[in-house]
Amino acid sequence: MISVVILGAGNVATHLFKGFEKTNDVSVVQWYNRNASSLQPYSHLVDVTDNLEALKDADLYIIAVSDDAISELSSSLPFKDKLVVHTSGSVSVYDLDMKLKRGVLYPLQSFSKAAKLDFDNVPICIETIDKKSYPLLKKVAVSLGSPTKRINSDQRRVLHLAAVFVNNFTNQLYRIGHEITESEGAEFDLLKPLIKETANKIEDMSPFKAQTGPAKRNDKKTIKKHLKQLDNEHHKAVYELLTDSIKRTHGRKKL
Amino acid sequence: MISVVILGAGNVATHLFKGFEKTNDVSVVQWYNRNASSLQPYSHLVDVTDNLEALKDADLYIIAVSDDAISELSSSLPFKDKLVVHTSGSVSVYDLDMKLKRGVLYPLQSFSKAAKLDFDNVPICIETIDKKSYPLLKKVAVSLGSPTKRINSDQRRVLHLAAVFVNNFTNQLYRIGHEITESEGAEFDLLKPLIKETANKIEDMSPFKAQTGPAKRNDKKTIKKHLKQLDNEHHKAVYELLTDSIKRTHGRKKL
Ligand SMILES: NC(=O)c1ccc[n+]([C@@H]2O[C@H](COP(=O)([O-])OP(=O)(O)OC[C@H]3O[C@@H](n4cnc5c(N)ncnc54)[C@H](OP(=O)(O)O)[C@@H]3O)[C@@H](O)[C@H]2O)c1
Ligand SMILES: NC(=O)c1ccc[n+]([C@@H]2O[C@H](COP(=O)([O-])OP(=O)(O)OC[C@H]3O[C@@H](n4cnc5c(N)ncnc54)[C@H](OP(=O)(O)O)[C@@H]3O)[C@@H](O)[C@H]2O)c1
Repeated sequence: MISVVILGAGNVATHLFKGFEKTNDVSVVQWYNRNASSLQPYSHLVDVTDNLEALKDADLYIIAVSDDAISELSSSLPFKDKLVVHTSGSVSVYDLDMKLKRGVLYPLQSFSKAAKLDFDNVPICIETIDKKSYPLLKKVAVSLGSPTKRINSDQRRVLHLAAVFVNNFTNQLYRIGHEITESEGAEFDLLKPLIKETANKIEDMSPFKAQTGPAKRNDKKTIKKHLKQLDNEHHKAVYELLTDSIKRTHGRKKL
Repeated sequence: MISVVILGAGNVATHLFKGFEKTNDVSVVQWYNRNASSLQPYSHLVDVTDNLEALKDADLYIIAVSDDAISELSSSLPFKDKLVVHTSGSVSVYDLDMKLKRGVLYPLQSFSKAAKLDFDNVPICIETIDKKSYPLLKKVAVSLGSPTKRINSDQRRVLHLAAVFVNNFTNQLYRIGHEITESEGAEFDLLKPLIKETANKIEDMSPFKAQTGPAKRNDKKTIKKHLKQLDNEHHKAVYELLTDSIKRTHGRKKL
């Protein structure tokens, strides 16, 4: 049985706690937050504390606090040479205090406290400085039911950046679709099956192969019609840039 | 039993034929294409022809050919006053020859011949000039198992435009995610669960509410880091424009 202490009480920390509660291989022996009141709802299930000096001994400490607070919290830990990881996609593993055995467990998914989460759908990217820490971290991730992948810092940084494109920016395109449809009294809901199909299609086809539409076909007549239809200048700019982007990818435009 | 003639042999025509084959309410009595050889694989199931003069009598004619060919083909039909629809999101219903009873059955989904398709996931938008044509078109769409929605021309045009944003442009963001990850030897596959979750999230949450990430938080430090990381000028332009777009939506920026 691997003993774990969780630090932080936000989206990721809470889902990790709930995930570990269901496993037989990991036991959360303590849950820390700077403000223990947010842990009260769980105090019948686990020892909670807001006192770093009272931290229990454990095989692994998982720091799941805001990116900016990771470094300082790691330095405040009243021990050394123990295995401590953070869960951030963008913070360096070296931002953890060097008195510790350091690593990262980066769960590549969008977490929110309120929403249900199935760790089957959360690839966990593992990074360690010390090779010997890897098997334990892998076991912890596997116990949650997550697919795991060993990566280095550059790969993690790049995954985090790519996640902004496929998650935040994609969601903003949904938002623009919402604005465009509602402005004419059309129902955004009618687009939802297409949105799902677009995401599902790349399961076994590259996004390159999956592309269709006026930009890919270089259908100038339709592109012109669409630009005329858009009266919001900002939507027009997005249309133009992404049409240009598709043309570049599909060789319709010199680079 | 409603009798239907399909015109065209492409992605949409082929899926419509297969869909109707499974219903009890609609019978495809004939399938036309300018080039009958592409219909040969189906000639044991349905009467096929490349001769407009030989078109059979039917309750409904569905023109599922390239946008540019719809108008001319409708004028070439050797009859009048019969119900004829096209399946395009962007062509006007008035582009059909006025000698006909005109309408549109616009299936709001991405079709490709090779891929499986479930009409449950294909909202069919119905437009008619003549009110009396509507019940028959609705029955035809419902027979396929599709959700249906009566819309007007403006709504159809706007749905088609919004579909470009949520389908073609979204897919291009997946492509950029692919380029970014592969350039550092990271696996694009690790992003697939996040891509699906992003699409699923808006099932019961607006894209406005679903937004997260550095642009929404106006996290300048991370945005700056990301821009520095991107060495492809074109990816950088997409990052900047969509970050700006999110800031506008979430009131971080004056309009
Ligand atoms: N959310 C996601 O989708 C996601 C996905 C992958 C990775 N991550 C990473 O996971 C980590 C946590 O993210 P989250 O979304 O769970 O954050 P969150 O919900 O915003 O929670 C932040 C937590 O950090 C604590 N905290 C903030 N400043 C602190 C400080 N100065 N000292 C001590 N604790 C402090 C907060 O304590 P209080 O409760 O007292 O405010 C809170 O418990 C971050 O590194 C993030 O990059 C997040
Ligand atoms: N694909 C989609 O995702 C989708 C979604 C919604 C709506 N639509 C609409 O559905 C319609 C058909 O699209 P599609 O994707 O099925 O097209 P497609 O696969 O490209 O097939 C086009 C068909 O049109 C025929 N055609 C082309 N030019 C013609 C002409 N001058 N005269 C007669 N026939 C001609 C072709 O005949 P040959 O076989 O002889 O070349 C072919 O059968 C279009 O209006 C499109 O906007 C498509």
